[in-house]
Amino acid sequence: MSGHAVWINGSWTDRIDPSDRGFALGDGVFDTLTAFNRIPFAGARHLDRLRKQASVIGISLDAKNVREAWDAVLARTESENVILRTTVTRGAAGRGLWPAATPTPTLAISAAPWNSSLFAKEVRLVISAISRNPGSPSSRLKTLGYLDHVLAARDAAERGADDALFLNVAGHVACTTIANVFAIAGGQLLAPPLIDGVMPGIMRALVLEAAPSIGLEPHERSVSPQELLDTDAVFLTNSVRVLSPVVSLDGQELSRRGAKTEATIRTAVAGLVLSECGFDLGSAH
Amino acid sequence: MSGHAVWINGSWTDRIDPSDRGFALGDGVFDTLTAFNRIPFAGARHLDRLRKQASVIGISLDAKNVREAWDAVLARTESENVILRTTVTRGAAGRGLWPAATPTPTLAISAAPWNSSLFAKEVRLVISAISRNPGSPSSRLKTLGYLDHVLAARDAAERGADDALFLNVAGHVACTTIANVFAIAGGQLLAPPLIDGVMPGIMRALVLEAAPSIGLEPHERSVSPQELLDTDAVFLTNSVRVLSPVVSLDGQELSRRGAKTEATIRTAVAGLVLSECGFDLGSAH
Repeated sequence: MSGHAVWINGSWTDRIDPSDRGFALGDGVFDTLTAFNRIPFAGARHLDRLRKQASVIGISLDAKNVREAWDAVLARTESENVILRTTVTRGAAGRGLWPAATPTPTLAISAAPWNSSLFAKEVRLVISAISRNPGSPSSRLKTLGYLDHVLAARDAAERGADDALFLNVAGHVACTTIANVFAIAGGQLLAPPLIDGVMPGIMRALVLEAAPSIGLEPHERSVSPQELLDTDAVFLTNSVRVLSPVVSLDGQELSRRGAKTEATIRTAVAGLVLSECGFDLGSAH
Repeated sequence: MSGHAVWINGSWTDRIDPSDRGFALGDGVFDTLTAFNRIPFAGARHLDRLRKQASVIGISLDAKNVREAWDAVLARTESENVILRTTVTRGAAGRGLWPAATPTPTLAISAAPWNSSLFAKEVRLVISAISRNPGSPSSRLKTLGYLDHVLAARDAAERGADDALFLNVAGHVACTTIANVFAIAGGQLLAPPLIDGVMPGIMRALVLEAAPSIGLEPHERSVSPQELLDTDAVFLTNSVRVLSPVVSLDGQELSRRGAKTEATIRTAVAGLVLSECGFDLGSAH
C-alpha cells in the first residue's frame, strides 16, 4: 500500500475526483479505528456509528460493503496493527450546495501502521479559545470539516501543549481535538454528555460500560474546566491512543490521585482488546 | 474544460490526492466569484480576502499565482460569464491533525458557466434549526467544511423553501447557507455584523459602501428574526446571485415596501459590474 493511496471500489487509487463533495464542501463523515492483529477492534460498533452518522446526513451506507473493504485492505497491509480510516462522502457532483436526491457516495479507506508509542501517552492540555456549538449537528458527527480542530491543535502546539480542550458555548467541557474526556472523582467516572457537543467516541462508550464492573459509577453530566483541576484524575480516550492520562491543563498540574483507578480502567480496555483481537496492549505499554 | 476538472499548477486535472488535507480534514478555504466578460468582478477584493483567510489558518498564498491561474482558466472557458471557485488547502500530508510546519498548499480552480437566471431571483427563506457559532473562527471563513450549510439547505428544500437562514447561538440573524442578509428599515440599511458569525461577503461590503451614495445609512448591528418580519424589505447578496429579494420567512410573507430602494441598490451594484467588466446586469434581468 502507498501512504497516499486509498481503497475505493476494490483497488488502491491515488485519485479523488476534485468535484467530490467531500473535497469541495466537507460533505461526508469518517471513522477511525485500530485493527490489532488485522482484526478491527470494536468493528461492529464503528460500523454501526458510521452507518448512523452517514444516515443523519442523508447518505445510505451498505455495512457489508464497508466490512468487505476493511477485510480487503487488512489483507494487504504490511503491519499487523493498522489504523483504518473510513471516509464516506456524498460523491462527485456539480456546483452548488443542494445535494442530489440520489447521490453516488464515495467510500474511501486508508491505512497507516499503528504505533505502540501512541498508547497511554501523557498529555498536556490547554483550553482552546475556539468554542464548540452543540446547536450544530456537526458537533456530534465525525464530519470532514475539521478546521476548528486543526486550528486548535496548531495553537496548542504553539503553546507547548499536546492537545487542545474544547469548551462548548456554555463553557462546559466538550472534548479535545482528537479525544473524549473523562474525570475520576472519588468513586465516580464523569463524562461530558453528548448533548454538550461531544463526539460519540467508541472508546468512550466502552469505558462507560466497563466502569461498573470495576466499582466506578459512570456519570454523564456537564463538567466545568474548574472540576478538572479539582478532580482525582483526568484522562482521554480515542480509538488509536486508547487511554491517555492528562497531566496538566493550561500549565496547571492535575492531580494523579486517581492514577490507580485509571490504570484499572486501562487494564479493563486492554482485556477487551485481548479477547477480541488477541493482542496484548499491556505488552505494548 | 471538463465540468469535473480543476486547474492545478498550469493544467486541467481530474485528480486530487486522497491525502490532501482539504479532502481529509476540510483544512482549507475557498472563494467564489463571477467573471463577467471573462473579467473577475471585484477580483482584487476576492483575492485579498482569500489571501487573508488563508493566512488566518496558516497558509501563505501568492496572490500573483492566483491571478495567473484565473487568467489561464478564463482564457480557456467556453462561456463569457463564468463562476470561478478557487480552493486553497494545506495540501497532501500524512495521517493526523497536526499540520506540517511547511505545508505545500494545493491551489485548485474550477469554472462553471454563470447563468443570468440566477440574478435577482426571489427567495423564500426558512430559519434553520442549526445555529451558527461566532466562537468558531470558521464562522467568518469560507472553509471547506460546509456540512452544516448542506444540511440546512437540504432541510430548507424539504420544507419547500429556497434557502435557510442561520441564527447564531444568541438568536441573532447571521447569514443564509450561501448569502449575506440585509434589511431595509426606513432610511437605514441593516446588516448583521461579522462578529455575529457572518461570512465577510464581497458583495456585502460593496453594498454597504454604496449605501450612502443612494441616501441609505448603513448600519452593521445585530438583527433579530422578528425585525426581518417588521422591516420594509429583506434581501440577500452573494457573488453569483448578486442581489436576491426575500419574499417570505418561515412561510410568513415579508414586506416589499422597500422594493424601490432595493432596486436602487441593485442598480448601483449593476453600475459597478458595468464599469468594471463592461457587462450589463440589467440586460440579464
